[in-house]
Amino acid sequence: MSWHATILTLFPEMFPGPLGVSLAGRALREGIWRCEALDIRSFATDRHRTVDDTPFGGGAGMVMRPDVADAAISAAMPDGDARPLVYLTPRGRLLDQAMVRDFAAGPGVVLFCGRYEGLDQRVIEARGMREVSLGDYVLSGGEVAALALLDACVRLLPGVMGASESAVEESHSAGLLEYPHYTRPAEWQGRAVPPVLLSGHHAEVARWRRTQSEAATRERRPDLWNRMQVAGAQAPA
Amino acid sequence: MSWHATILTLFPEMFPGPLGVSLAGRALREGIWRCEALDIRSFATDRHRTVDDTPFGGGAGMVMRPDVADAAISAAMPDGDARPLVYLTPRGRLLDQAMVRDFAAGPGVVLFCGRYEGLDQRVIEARGMREVSLGDYVLSGGEVAALALLDACVRLLPGVMGASESAVEESHSAGLLEYPHYTRPAEWQGRAVPPVLLSGHHAEVARWRRTQSEAATRERRPDLWNRMQVAGAQAPA
Repeated sequence: MSWHATILTLFPEMFPGPLGVSLAGRALREGIWRCEALDIRSFATDRHRTVDDTPFGGGAGMVMRPDVADAAISAAMPDGDARPLVYLTPRGRLLDQAMVRDFAAGPGVVLFCGRYEGLDQRVIEARGMREVSLGDYVLSGGEVAALALLDACVRLLPGVMGASESAVEESHSAGLLEYPHYTRPAEWQGRAVPPVLLSGHHAEVARWRRTQSEAATRERRPDLWNRMQVAGAQAPA
Repeated sequence: MSWHATILTLFPEMFPGPLGVSLAGRALREGIWRCEALDIRSFATDRHRTVDDTPFGGGAGMVMRPDVADAAISAAMPDGDARPLVYLTPRGRLLDQAMVRDFAAGPGVVLFCGRYEGLDQRVIEARGMREVSLGDYVLSGGEVAALALLDACVRLLPGVMGASESAVEESHSAGLLEYPHYTRPAEWQGRAVPPVLLSGHHAEVARWRRTQSEAATRERRPDLWNRMQVAGAQAPA
């Protein structure tokens, strides 16, 4: 059984898009996952194919109608479909790697891409949709967020990454940013690689990298750093 | 002068991709922005077109070479190019809407998309690259992150959004999540719209929305909520 992604969108032509090339594209061709996009507009029932309307209570922007969204969801998820139904919205909980691992470990996902001001709250509640946000910035719709979520999940599916591609995972799992990387040439434009990395002392290399990871985390991501301190995490060397 | 995005990537065929349709696609055709992708591999100098090598100090994965990356950056940015050079990496500072507004207000961006374990640290320092992360999850490379950053910027360029599309901005700027939205039909599957939204009392609607925004922020994003409390933000009623 392939991992199964269904995307509900007003722009089905955006999928698989960038996920049709590289690692994800190869996995798609090998049947490790499959991807189908349904056009929400095709579930509109009036002759203008209307999917949105003005908000009750006033205000700018348009809101996606619950009846049209619900019909699209019914078409995407037959009874008994065990996949999580995710609504991509800046109102959601922040996507993180734990959530990605959880999605990747299951049978797949159904992603609802919002446009305009958002989706009528009643269908979110009636369907128990999981509201997920990529981060604290505003996109033109849920589509690029869906691509990011899928990219993050697909690379974790068995058979997608080779051993050489799989290491990035580890440092993020430890709650620290990665240490800096260096490769050939050993000297470039007068800049040398830090000598410890050429020393062959594995323990010293590990200690240097840990120090670098901690310094980067403290400086760039005080939020992560404080969370680690609160959790009482111990540095493993 | 159009807003100018240059993307350095091993997968130039991913661009403009999803940004070639919808709002961003129309703006691209109207010349409000332009987008060019350069293939990093075309700046490799050996006959195998090698862009990466093993990391000094050992470890899994491959690292992108500084000399190849630097040649690609030189080609993308002629002397005097005032655009920020952004490296998309989970080691970066988190993208937020303030950063997006800053990028959108300038002449454009140059985006370097990492693959493999990452880019040699020396070129990041030599070029003063701004390291930016979409969030705490791992993507297969910087490409989908670049699409998200561009999507967020392009919608803010003058002439891209109509008035009806521009309201989402406001609530995120206030540091709160958006309130829930409702539209027709007023009753759907036995679920009614909250009566206050049909009352016509603008002040009561505003108060209800504010309460809903605060409750959602407190529950879903305690990090944002605590930041607001620390900042001593006052509820504008």
